[in-house]
Amino acid sequence: MLCIVASLISRSAAAAAGPVTPVWQEVAPGVWKTTVGRPESLTLLKAAGGKPALEALARMPAAPFPFDATQIEGRQFDWKTIVRLPLGAEEDIYGLGVDFSSMRRNGNIFELRVDHWSTRVPVTGRTHAPVPLYVSTQGFAVLFDTARYLKVTVGHGVRLAAPSKPPVIDRTTGTVWQEDPQAAPVRGRWNSAPRSDSIEVLANAEGMDVYVFAGPSPLDAIRRYNLYAGGGALPPKWGLGFMARTPTRYGAKEALETILDFRRNGIPLDMLGLEPGWMSYAYPCSFEWDATRFPDPEGFLAEVRKHNVRVNLWFNPYVGPPSTPLYQKLLPYAGTHLVWNGIVPDYTLEEPKRIFIDHLKRTVIEKNPSAIGGFKLDEVDGYDRYLWPDTATFPSGLHSEQLRQTYAMLLQQAVYASFHESDRRTMSQIRGNNAGASPYPFVIYSDSYDFDEYITAVCNSGFAGVLWSPEVRGNGGLETRLRAAREAGRTDEAQALLAEVVSDQVRRTQAVCFSPLALFNGWATSTKLWTYPEATPHVRSAILLRQRLLPYLYHSFAQYHREGTPVIRPMQLASRERPVRREGTAAGELEATANPYEVPAAARETKDQYLFGDALLVAPIAPGATSRTVLLPEGKWYDFYTGRYAGADETITVTPPLDRIPLFVRDGALVPMIAVERPHAPQAGERLPLEIRHYGEKPGALSLYDDDGETFAYERGEYSHTGLAVVKDAAGRWQGSVTPDANGRPWSYSDVTWTFMTP
Amino acid sequence: MLCIVASLISRSAAAAAGPVTPVWQEVAPGVWKTTVGRPESLTLLKAAGGKPALEALARMPAAPFPFDATQIEGRQFDWKTIVRLPLGAEEDIYGLGVDFSSMRRNGNIFELRVDHWSTRVPVTGRTHAPVPLYVSTQGFAVLFDTARYLKVTVGHGVRLAAPSKPPVIDRTTGTVWQEDPQAAPVRGRWNSAPRSDSIEVLANAEGMDVYVFAGPSPLDAIRRYNLYAGGGALPPKWGLGFMARTPTRYGAKEALETILDFRRNGIPLDMLGLEPGWMSYAYPCSFEWDATRFPDPEGFLAEVRKHNVRVNLWFNPYVGPPSTPLYQKLLPYAGTHLVWNGIVPDYTLEEPKRIFIDHLKRTVIEKNPSAIGGFKLDEVDGYDRYLWPDTATFPSGLHSEQLRQTYAMLLQQAVYASFHESDRRTMSQIRGNNAGASPYPFVIYSDSYDFDEYITAVCNSGFAGVLWSPEVRGNGGLETRLRAAREAGRTDEAQALLAEVVSDQVRRTQAVCFSPLALFNGWATSTKLWTYPEATPHVRSAILLRQRLLPYLYHSFAQYHREGTPVIRPMQLASRERPVRREGTAAGELEATANPYEVPAAARETKDQYLFGDALLVAPIAPGATSRTVLLPEGKWYDFYTGRYAGADETITVTPPLDRIPLFVRDGALVPMIAVERPHAPQAGERLPLEIRHYGEKPGALSLYDDDGETFAYERGEYSHTGLAVVKDAAGRWQGSVTPDANGRPWSYSDVTWTFMTP
Repeated sequence: MLCIVASLISRSAAAAAGPVTPVWQEVAPGVWKTTVGRPESLTLLKAAGGKPALEALARMPAAPFPFDATQIEGRQFDWKTIVRLPLGAEEDIYGLGVDFSSMRRNGNIFELRVDHWSTRVPVTGRTHAPVPLYVSTQGFAVLFDTARYLKVTVGHGVRLAAPSKPPVIDRTTGTVWQEDPQAAPVRGRWNSAPRSDSIEVLANAEGMDVYVFAGPSPLDAIRRYNLYAGGGALPPKWGLGFMARTPTRYGAKEALETILDFRRNGIPLDMLGLEPGWMSYAYPCSFEWDATRFPDPEGFLAEVRKHNVRVNLWFNPYVGPPSTPLYQKLLPYAGTHLVWNGIVPDYTLEEPKRIFIDHLKRTVIEKNPSAIGGFKLDEVDGYDRYLWPDTATFPSGLHSEQLRQTYAMLLQQAVYASFHESDRRTMSQIRGNNAGASPYPFVIYSDSYDFDEYITAVCNSGFAGVLWSPEVRGNGGLETRLRAAREAGRTDEAQALLAEVVSDQVRRTQAVCFSPLALFNGWATSTKLWTYPEATPHVRSAILLRQRLLPYLYHSFAQYHREGTPVIRPMQLASRERPVRREGTAAGELEATANPYEVPAAARETKDQYLFGDALLVAPIAPGATSRTVLLPEGKWYDFYTGRYAGADETITVTPPLDRIPLFVRDGALVPMIAVERPHAPQAGERLPLEIRHYGEKPGALSLYDDDGETFAYERGEYSHTGLAVVKDAAGRWQGSVTPDANGRPWSYSDVTWTFMTP
Repeated sequence: MLCIVASLISRSAAAAAGPVTPVWQEVAPGVWKTTVGRPESLTLLKAAGGKPALEALARMPAAPFPFDATQIEGRQFDWKTIVRLPLGAEEDIYGLGVDFSSMRRNGNIFELRVDHWSTRVPVTGRTHAPVPLYVSTQGFAVLFDTARYLKVTVGHGVRLAAPSKPPVIDRTTGTVWQEDPQAAPVRGRWNSAPRSDSIEVLANAEGMDVYVFAGPSPLDAIRRYNLYAGGGALPPKWGLGFMARTPTRYGAKEALETILDFRRNGIPLDMLGLEPGWMSYAYPCSFEWDATRFPDPEGFLAEVRKHNVRVNLWFNPYVGPPSTPLYQKLLPYAGTHLVWNGIVPDYTLEEPKRIFIDHLKRTVIEKNPSAIGGFKLDEVDGYDRYLWPDTATFPSGLHSEQLRQTYAMLLQQAVYASFHESDRRTMSQIRGNNAGASPYPFVIYSDSYDFDEYITAVCNSGFAGVLWSPEVRGNGGLETRLRAAREAGRTDEAQALLAEVVSDQVRRTQAVCFSPLALFNGWATSTKLWTYPEATPHVRSAILLRQRLLPYLYHSFAQYHREGTPVIRPMQLASRERPVRREGTAAGELEATANPYEVPAAARETKDQYLFGDALLVAPIAPGATSRTVLLPEGKWYDFYTGRYAGADETITVTPPLDRIPLFVRDGALVPMIAVERPHAPQAGERLPLEIRHYGEKPGALSLYDDDGETFAYERGEYSHTGLAVVKDAAGRWQGSVTPDANGRPWSYSDVTWTFMTP
């Protein structure tokens, strides 16, 4: 543990003395912490409650403080806390929350605030997961661990005191100002947004905790962050299968019928989502089964479980009506304002959290622990028009914004505890998130349905220590037009619209199958995955492929859990070198209305493809598109389906058929897959045949993780690593070998076959 | 002066005791003030610096505190100040800044912040003029006089403690929850946004001043506000004529040529705007004439003045480059951050303000006081990407947000002082504004160019004590397509596009001629008002009509100045009764993606027409439109052009020809107009013939205001009121009469003719 700088900050000293250089304490290998001003009682990491994975962090290499700590300033005056960090001229910044529209943060100004998706453009900092963690291409990350709304400027606002400033250029003539009036004239291009040398943040608070995570690579910095937050989430195996949500008003009968429909149509299903109709009252939520639609919850759950399916139950955390038992118990802990007429319990306090956990266990989980897969925690993200106002106060005395920034964290921690106490893993959904979320298998979703936004959000999730999943729903607009064209006998139009509808369902299904949670959300549509016979085979094959890839995917999550390596990695994290070439910008054309500030065209940035675990590169193709470009990073890459060489360190164009999402495999990678097609994920104790695919020219090796897939036995050491290796024999032929785990611990597979994909 | 409530708030008491009921002090007839928490050194009204027009306020009727003061709560804890006011079930709220998209504020949540237009949707509270003044249909107004970002919720966030709450309705079934479980079931419609009984505001501050302005009508409340702020602005007469801005790089030669072009084309011109090119350096601004483009400022100004034209000089307040004299003088007062590489002087301090005023006078105004019309104060409104960041600090010790919220006010106060000290009035432009702006003849403009937004902003300006003007520019997109079609010989397409271009220029010109400042903004276009011969006659006639209406318009501004009555009045201020019938909303249709919360369709609100002074109703017609509906308020209304009866208390549809903007006149109104067409506004000492038009069935009377139109002599009593009256004589014929001002003070008109418009 090392103190970088000797001077010490105190509140009064700061007010008197202006900026101070913070003292950094190394709290784990390559992780430093400081507090500017007075520490706050509630921070994001405290709300999340994860325990730093110190053993895993200790396995990472030691690293020096990753930049010049004397360049950091903290200021505290009145009730404002300000931190400034240096931004290099060649440094790009990523992260700062799951933005939907772009990746690079340079030049942006925003206020990080948990919010609904609909306020996403322009980049405002309001998002489902405004994680105040930034990642630098210089190979480190910084977390502002505050539960306040956080204002952030990245490379904006040149300081008068900056040692080096951008050139001053007369906009009228393009003349560059020079100190020496006799100097020969120089011309330049006026810039509407001169780049500053700093990242600056401000919170209305009396202090702020800040963490720095060393690299050496950006990916290493992310890993340290994820491990410090507690290590990545390890979902149950069935949680990586396929999930479908039912329409709002479905009861037990319709839910069971839905499971049978999936089985009849040969489409895998592992988890069935029940919507508000499972409760006697919703918006506000009673947290009691509805006696009409679910007269026998135990019987229903037992029947679901027979099909190797779990249920996932929707709720939002606003409790009512007043006659409901949970309302009565939580009322003493409620904030001053209601949401949808429901009380807002102050879960920063232990008592209401305990009441909530006990209620959830007794009313739901303990009805049948092996049949309850998880919950969908809706509307924990705002937005302003639904959430409690900033003027609300809470029994703990904490401010409204602190509850808003942490409410999703507090809730998921409580729900996670309900499962953990029952020794059952969960795969849950949540609509808000924040820093410290890494250990929780709660996948963010959104009301957005824009394909490009979805993929960019998936990419950004890798910078934020959160899981994010797009959805496939129905496409109401298209389908209505299709029905109208059919009814009117407009055959050609109907044919064209049908092709659109089919492409929409297939391409979206493919994309969700390469995200953390593969999900069909049918809560408000009559469309099913088998509504269009032209789409069904492709939908089925996408989901079956997901199911077959489960060993690979589960292994990738184990890496997330044990090493902090995110399953989804944006291309900016693709290698240990700075990954994305910085591309130039086109000069802006003046137009009084369209572009009065001659803002340059944005540089192209890669935000539509990502790595999925160590081996796979996913390049989702949008509905209706027939081709796209794919950036293949350094090293050789191979087509997943054929094993053929695709390219290296270059941009290629692909024209995939409807039944294939573009997928590429890294040279030498091993991809472990279930050798057979199955209607659901493997259950605990099941043993299935394994196929190991090898791609490319290099030999491959993988220490494949396994455990029971359902309980927390892995926390007690009940897991295994099985060595898989592919090398060339003396005759130049590929040979695969298996080295069983030394301790003979859990292993879910029967025979292993090898497929050498690259001809 | 009356204290409404006896209990007293102190900071420590508030922290200990929770909400308190504020004490109200009557500071002027019908105007009450309270301070929640500790008073702040800088508020909006303090920054604006206007002196309450106490004499005019004393002429207004006494009024009781307009609602139940015991329903108001103030809270102060830590560094947050919260105020809650009651919102009645039938009460609608308007105001809270110049929003571009809607008028009614109920159900909205926002943070009022001075900002650029581009962050305008959804309603966020960020606007050029986020005046924290709300107007209630119950007939009063409330001002939150804080220079902080202000969070406001209007009817959102039902309180747990509210005595009456909206019904709790199960979303799944529509069942209304009832306390008595045996009660017969009742069904209702679930509402995504239950209406609260409060308006709540929050600022990160240790206290806040709040003012209440009594009615009895909403218009009276606005009048009291405007008078308390100092009374409305009275521009010079020529400021109400026509203005044109030149392209950025124009020098003296091109500017003079432009004046001649206007004269040659018979299009009136009173003020010519010089863009950044007048300065030796811009972005940052040197505040020195450019010696190349303007080698002889005095000669240039004298020449301009010969044509009875004034110049208006662009600047933004960010000073540089470092070698420029003003930079050197202001550097000691600069904030920590630059804007466009220019320093940001802290004009809350007297010394830099004095330096700036003196520089402006010496460098510009005193070169020729009668030729300098005003300035265009650009970029005093943000937006975030250009302005100093919230982390900036300033020599006064005030916070960044306080400077941001008041910078436009501080600047316009300084510029106004420069003119006042020279005894010359100004008509200036400004891109930001805030509370207390009423006395300043600074008209807001925007980079927006959406016609509907413009008109809605004009409407909202009447609720905010500010002046707002749309612009006519070129229409780059359309014109490019027109050129292409012409060059390719696509005659039909070119014809259609030409019609669009012509409609665009004509309809926009008509709209700007019925706004406070009639302006063609040619800073970044080669298009002139005479580029399209098909448009020119209609453009000319619109501007000539504006010029002829000058006596009416000047009188309306005198009413603004002396009585606080805004020149522009949204339809919600059209009568002393609650003006707009509250319209029902259509139930929302559930759609998973388009409308997951079943949000009802917004109620229609009138936001596309307004009153222009006492007599006229303006219903601008958009480019390309051939008809529109017009809501005529109670009382009879007559067509301006023909005098024919148009309707009363009803919605009519009009199909105006291209050369007429729909204009209606109130029954019995007198409209004083200059009887001849002139290329510019009347100059001091000129005497022109006056035509008085009478409309409708009722007799009419008007006490027409006049003064020298150029200096502040009116402040020294040099103004007149001339009685104009129309009654029917014994034979039933209309007769007009003139009663000269008793003191024989200034009167600019020669003979008076009467036109009885209604047949």
